[in-house]
Amino acid sequence: MTRINENFLKLQAGYLFPEIGRRRKAFQQANPDAKIISMGIGDITQPLAPAVVEAMKEAVEEMGRPEGVKGYDDGGVGYDFLRQAIRDNDYKARGANIDIDEIFVSDGAKCDTGNLQEVFGLDNVVAVSDPVYPVYVDTNVMAGRTGGAAGQGRYEGIVYMPCTEQNDFVAEPPAEAVDLIYLCFPNNPTGAVATKEQLAKWVDYARKNKAIILFDAAYEAFISDPDIPHSIYEIDGAKDVAIEFRSFSKTAGFTGVRCAFTVVPKQLKAETKAGEAVDVAPIWKRRHCTKFNGVSYVTQAGAAAAYTERGKQQIRETIDLYMSNAKLIRETLSQIGYTVYGGVNAPYIWLKTPDGIGSWEFFDTLLNKAHVVGTPGAGFGSAGEGYFRLTAFGKPDSVEKALERIKAIS
Amino acid sequence: MTRINENFLKLQAGYLFPEIGRRRKAFQQANPDAKIISMGIGDITQPLAPAVVEAMKEAVEEMGRPEGVKGYDDGGVGYDFLRQAIRDNDYKARGANIDIDEIFVSDGAKCDTGNLQEVFGLDNVVAVSDPVYPVYVDTNVMAGRTGGAAGQGRYEGIVYMPCTEQNDFVAEPPAEAVDLIYLCFPNNPTGAVATKEQLAKWVDYARKNKAIILFDAAYEAFISDPDIPHSIYEIDGAKDVAIEFRSFSKTAGFTGVRCAFTVVPKQLKAETKAGEAVDVAPIWKRRHCTKFNGVSYVTQAGAAAAYTERGKQQIRETIDLYMSNAKLIRETLSQIGYTVYGGVNAPYIWLKTPDGIGSWEFFDTLLNKAHVVGTPGAGFGSAGEGYFRLTAFGKPDSVEKALERIKAIS
Repeated sequence: MTRINENFLKLQAGYLFPEIGRRRKAFQQANPDAKIISMGIGDITQPLAPAVVEAMKEAVEEMGRPEGVKGYDDGGVGYDFLRQAIRDNDYKARGANIDIDEIFVSDGAKCDTGNLQEVFGLDNVVAVSDPVYPVYVDTNVMAGRTGGAAGQGRYEGIVYMPCTEQNDFVAEPPAEAVDLIYLCFPNNPTGAVATKEQLAKWVDYARKNKAIILFDAAYEAFISDPDIPHSIYEIDGAKDVAIEFRSFSKTAGFTGVRCAFTVVPKQLKAETKAGEAVDVAPIWKRRHCTKFNGVSYVTQAGAAAAYTERGKQQIRETIDLYMSNAKLIRETLSQIGYTVYGGVNAPYIWLKTPDGIGSWEFFDTLLNKAHVVGTPGAGFGSAGEGYFRLTAFGKPDSVEKALERIKAIS
Repeated sequence: MTRINENFLKLQAGYLFPEIGRRRKAFQQANPDAKIISMGIGDITQPLAPAVVEAMKEAVEEMGRPEGVKGYDDGGVGYDFLRQAIRDNDYKARGANIDIDEIFVSDGAKCDTGNLQEVFGLDNVVAVSDPVYPVYVDTNVMAGRTGGAAGQGRYEGIVYMPCTEQNDFVAEPPAEAVDLIYLCFPNNPTGAVATKEQLAKWVDYARKNKAIILFDAAYEAFISDPDIPHSIYEIDGAKDVAIEFRSFSKTAGFTGVRCAFTVVPKQLKAETKAGEAVDVAPIWKRRHCTKFNGVSYVTQAGAAAAYTERGKQQIRETIDLYMSNAKLIRETLSQIGYTVYGGVNAPYIWLKTPDGIGSWEFFDTLLNKAHVVGTPGAGFGSAGEGYFRLTAFGKPDSVEKALERIKAIS
């Protein structure tokens, strides 16, 4: 008799975005004429950069020629041409020394942040921010690293670190010892960023407690403040204790193309129960090469084009467009009396719901009255209750229209 | 203190193909002038079909236009256009009734066969053929569903079903009750196929024992015998007990493009420890949508083009080319006295090593004397010892040359 993995039965309701989709669909069916504007899922609205399009087309043509056949990406960790571009542009240029063997190319940061926990034992204590990107939590629940959902929808066994107005949405290291710490800066959903000093505290904590930081930097390209680090490896000592996730999804508009990478430094170690130190990178590589088979050559060629001078400039223009949306959202909502965070170094705006109403109630109000879809803060954790996430990824005219509608009902 | 997942430490040596790569590289470095011919890893050598190339280029161009932007593939389960083509061509055309909601598009059958075990409890007993595609076993070891490696490199807790000359390389259902059964037909590595009657026995067994069959049909396109089923769903009652994996890797030459799919029928159930029946499809969907984010639109457009009349014909020509390699390998090796299996309904030839020498010894002999790389049968399990796998995916002139060299040293 086949038994199900009962850890999946601990998961609450649907994953956040399917639930939003369900409510949206129901409203659209009841109101077929309503023109809903989405500021909910952080999905791109601008086309791929011309430099990327050209590189991908060339790669496809190459694969169609007898002399250009490309089969498995040997080892599945990414072509050297892409990993070298990543090393030089994302790390060397910022003073971080990362070897290409430490870079693992994949099909998404969601996949990587979800899969990486597999290489660690089930007895590690996981710490997450609250609010938090749900994938960090749900994948640990599925793996069996938690108990059931208890009060406020929090899972037993996970250490939640509230991120609130009081701490500027950047958690301090906890008093207790934890083992695996998920940090995301620029933050999804709050749009907060961490300074070098704040990250250094975390690196210190991890070194003292032999903990590992899982650092999600998927939104680093949106940082405008020159003093904010883009990578955890800009902090001294981080290579001993941190894994970093990056993505082309938002940077190069690859949500529909699928490319990302993870950095696992060679010197990073975990321990057996008997106290023996084990290198993490070869274990991750084994996992990667056994359960994954590399990223499309076409996709990797496109990602590499994002690092050319032309590619960089074109991508910068798109990011600037999204960030001018962010500015407009911040300013408009502030003018009409909302308290607004984020949106300066991140494509997410985190606003307080008016009159302290619940996040899902505000979601329904916006959907029903303004035909605008956002993301309820409570969907990211109990400390997100009373907040609401808007994304800056819309088309400028849609963003303007959405803001007018929100103004009209406020 | 972060603890490693010690299940990974149970894994033996490297994953088979990296080990082959290592030996090949060492030989090449020592003999820089040797022109090695690979008949080892089952990787394609023919270019993408023109119909696929055109569709992919169009898709890239589309994503570069403001009105053609494609972000996340909603839900990550695959676009309807592709799932409809799969349903109609792979199932309806063969009398199997599969709904598009039962089809989950992914980036590879390796990924799917590796990931799917996650939705089942760790207390299920897993049965695999011996020899076996290593991913089925290794991913269960990583998950903690086995003990350590014991005699003959077999993991404690797994039921191994020897596939030998005696049973024509098709295992009978075991006498004991097992829960999760991996079957692969056409088989990798032996090239064996199962008849309807043989598969019906397995479906009966699964129904009686409330077991689930994980059916890997990645090589179905190579079946030439009209009586051999391409899908487990051609067997009555299979939808209650079987999950099927398919791939575009070998069919459409997508090893470097990455597209596959898994069918999880709605009626398939597993049980909780308390004996409550649970639908498997929603659990897999939850896993898929949480830890995966869909396949590139460009890739899906290419995969759909493989189902057009032009695409089908072009792909058929490539498969015919590979299968004429298979025929040549079979015939040549038989002529020079080898005992040869497979290669009729599958792109794999499974030969007995001469004079009963070990698989790895034969590997080293072929590499050192003929500069030909194959795959040692022992790498697929202890019952593969004394066998050797050659693949039919080479370029015809390379295959001819490799056979001449093998002839010369035999």
